[in-house]
Amino acid sequence: MGTEERNIFIKIAYDGTDFSGWQRQPGRRTVCGELEEVMSRVLGAPVSLSGASRTDAGVHACGQTASFTGIYGIPTERIPKAVNDALARDRLERVSDVEILSAEEKPEGFHARFSSTGKRYIYRISNAPKTDVFKHRSHFQVTRPLDVSLMREAAEYIKGEHDFACFQSAGGTPRETTVRNVYRLDVLEKGGFGTGGSLIDIVIEGNGFLYNMVRIISGTLAEAGLGKRTPESVLQAIEAKDRSLAGFVAPPQGLYLDEVFYQE
Amino acid sequence: MGTEERNIFIKIAYDGTDFSGWQRQPGRRTVCGELEEVMSRVLGAPVSLSGASRTDAGVHACGQTASFTGIYGIPTERIPKAVNDALARDRLERVSDVEILSAEEKPEGFHARFSSTGKRYIYRISNAPKTDVFKHRSHFQVTRPLDVSLMREAAEYIKGEHDFACFQSAGGTPRETTVRNVYRLDVLEKGGFGTGGSLIDIVIEGNGFLYNMVRIISGTLAEAGLGKRTPESVLQAIEAKDRSLAGFVAPPQGLYLDEVFYQE
Repeated sequence: MGTEERNIFIKIAYDGTDFSGWQRQPGRRTVCGELEEVMSRVLGAPVSLSGASRTDAGVHACGQTASFTGIYGIPTERIPKAVNDALARDRLERVSDVEILSAEEKPEGFHARFSSTGKRYIYRISNAPKTDVFKHRSHFQVTRPLDVSLMREAAEYIKGEHDFACFQSAGGTPRETTVRNVYRLDVLEKGGFGTGGSLIDIVIEGNGFLYNMVRIISGTLAEAGLGKRTPESVLQAIEAKDRSLAGFVAPPQGLYLDEVFYQE
Repeated sequence: MGTEERNIFIKIAYDGTDFSGWQRQPGRRTVCGELEEVMSRVLGAPVSLSGASRTDAGVHACGQTASFTGIYGIPTERIPKAVNDALARDRLERVSDVEILSAEEKPEGFHARFSSTGKRYIYRISNAPKTDVFKHRSHFQVTRPLDVSLMREAAEYIKGEHDFACFQSAGGTPRETTVRNVYRLDVLEKGGFGTGGSLIDIVIEGNGFLYNMVRIISGTLAEAGLGKRTPESVLQAIEAKDRSLAGFVAPPQGLYLDEVFYQE
C-alpha cells in the first residue's frame, strides 16, 4: 500500500440540482469536477475519474459508479469517509449534495464504464392536482391525471431489444448502433391522483442507453398516460426510427441513475 | 371590483433553499422580493406584502401568510393561479420554488402579522448512521443516535409560559418582553436509527417566537437526545435567562413554518 498502483472503484450518490451534470466543464460546478478536485487533495495525488454514466444537468444519482487508478497513501476503505468529510466542510450548515457511498479495489483492467453490463434508472413523477414546492427538485410534477394502465400498455411496446433511434436526442456521443435491450420497464404507482396525489416511478433497466433515452421514454409514457397519444403509436415511432414520432424529453429533475450492473 | 381598495390575505409555500430568507434585500433573491415583483406585474399595480414571519435564509414554509392592500383589476380568487403561472415561467423544466396556496379578502384592519395569534413550526431531523444527499435541503441530519425519550423530557421544561431569553440570538428585532407561551412541543418519531434511520419531527406551537428561538430549542433538544446535556439543564438555562446555557442554533434547512393561527 502506498507504492503500488491501485484500480479503485467507487459508488457515488448526488442530488443533481446544483450541478451542471457529471462531465467536467471549465467554469462550471460538475459532479466529476468537484469530486476530482477534492479527491486529489485528500488522496495527495491526482485523481482522474471514469464515470459509468454522463448524467445531464439536474439529473440525480443514487448509484453512479466511477473508477480511477493511481498510487495513493490512504487505504481504500478509508476513502469514503475522508472524502465525504472534505466535501461537507461544515456538516451542520451545509451537508454536501454529493457523497461517496463505498470504495473497493478491483483487478487491473476493470473499468466503471466499459466493464458495466447495464444500468437501472428510475424516473419519478408526482401526479397531483396541485404542484408542491417541496417536490420541484426531485420529481416531474404532472397536474392532470395520468392513466397508469395506458402507460403500462405503451411500455410493453418498448420492452425488449429494438432499434431505439426514435428515443435519441441529437448531440450525444456518436454510437455504432442504436440497438439496445430494455429488459425491464415497469410503471409503479403509489397513492391516487384525487386522494392527495400519486407517486409514479418508471423503473427501466437495459444494457445501454442512448442520449436522453430514458427522459424521452418517460415523456412518451407520460403522453400516453395523458391520452395525448395511443399506446400503439409508440410501436409506430420505434418502427419508423423517427424522433419526431416519439414524445417530449421529460425534465431532468425526475431522473435518477439508480444502479450500474457488473458481471460476477 | 377594480375600483375599491381590497385587503387581501394570501397563504404561501416555499422551499427556502435558494432564498436569502423572506425579507426583501437589495441584490438578493428573497421570497418577499420575488413575490412582490411578480405580483405587481400580474396585478397591474404595486403590491407591498406584510408577511407573518420573517423566515431566515434556507428556512422553508408550508403555511406562511401575508396581507396587502390596493386597487386591482383581477378578482381575488384568480390571484393564486395567475401569480403561480408567472412564477413558474417554464413549468416543464423549472417549476417554481415559491407558490401562492390561496387568496381571500379580509375586512379593513386585518393584518397577516399583527392579527395572528400564534404559529406552528416543525423542525425535521433525519437520524441515521449515514447522511443522505437527498435530505440535505430538507432535514437536519444527525448521524449519532438521538434518544427521543430524553428529548421529550427536556421538552417538558420548555412547554408553557416562560421568559425565553436564553433561546434568543442577538441581532433580532428588539422586543418589549421575552416572555412567550409555548403551548405545544411534541417530539414525534417514525422509524428507527438502526433500521434505515428515523425521522424526528419537533412540532412547536406558541403565541410568539423570539429570533432563532425554534432553531435554538431544536438544537438544545438535539443535545439532550445525544446525551450532551441533561434534560434538567434546560430548566437551568431558562431560569438563568442565559443564552450560553442553552444549545446551538440548529441549521435552517430543517425548519418549516407550518401554520399561522388567527382568531375565529
